[in-house]
Amino acid sequence: MKRRYFEDLKRGDRFKSKTYRVSKKQIIAFAREFDPQPFHLDEKIARQTMFQELIASGWQTAAISMRLFVRALNFAEGLIGLGVDELRWPTSVKPNDILQVETEIAHLRKSRSKPRYGIVRICNVTTNQRGEIVQTMTSSTLVLRRKT
Amino acid sequence: MKRRYFEDLKRGDRFKSKTYRVSKKQIIAFAREFDPQPFHLDEKIARQTMFQELIASGWQTAAISMRLFVRALNFAEGLIGLGVDELRWPTSVKPNDILQVETEIAHLRKSRSKPRYGIVRICNVTTNQRGEIVQTMTSSTLVLRRKT
Repeated sequence: MKRRYFEDLKRGDRFKSKTYRVSKKQIIAFAREFDPQPFHLDEKIARQTMFQELIASGWQTAAISMRLFVRALNFAEGLIGLGVDELRWPTSVKPNDILQVETEIAHLRKSRSKPRYGIVRICNVTTNQRGEIVQTMTSSTLVLRRKT
Repeated sequence: MKRRYFEDLKRGDRFKSKTYRVSKKQIIAFAREFDPQPFHLDEKIARQTMFQELIASGWQTAAISMRLFVRALNFAEGLIGLGVDELRWPTSVKPNDILQVETEIAHLRKSRSKPRYGIVRICNVTTNQRGEIVQTMTSSTLVLRRKT
């Protein structure tokens, strides 16, 4: 698979990732390690909460979305995240959901302080198998420029 | 440990979490699963990148910060994240760093649509053992109100 550089992108470009199925076991394991709250940890207790079922931590949705996005774009030397804004989880991720990320290149400019890099503003939308949006975010990233 | 409700919080309250040590093994394991980029995966390859050493994924820093925060505050029935803004990683997390989260309650109001809940705006700052800031973020959350 070809490695992508700053010059390979233009505003409005869209990319679709592969898909990723999230199991109940993965949801509980992630919650135990990083987000030990009742609606992420135990199916029975989750039924008594606002969500009425087991749901994944938003941070797990974010991490899975990162995996899908990184593999879809395949930047040379990787993608360096400067920051994330407007991270939202409009629908919860449940066991056996199948997630996919669509990326849009929102803005590009050369970095003034780091001449080897460009700054790329990215909008990522993660959906489930029913087309419901489970996460949206925008992020500013450093992407390597081709040697000239 | 006492379970916290909306009524237990007021603007300006501050909380400090316990600490969490991040191993090299954990950094590589998280990267393999969620953020497979060269500077997160392999010490030798990382030396040739911009960072010149192995660093943790920002999403791992976020997940560890969530763990520390959730345990420090211990909300009744858990804390429901509505969204996150201004998530930044000013300094990278490296193997054997010891992280700690400080939380400030920035704003509180009762929810109009969900009378059992309050909406709490939270600012979290994660630091390492040298006091350097490795993450900042603000988030809006739903917190359960006491039954009256």
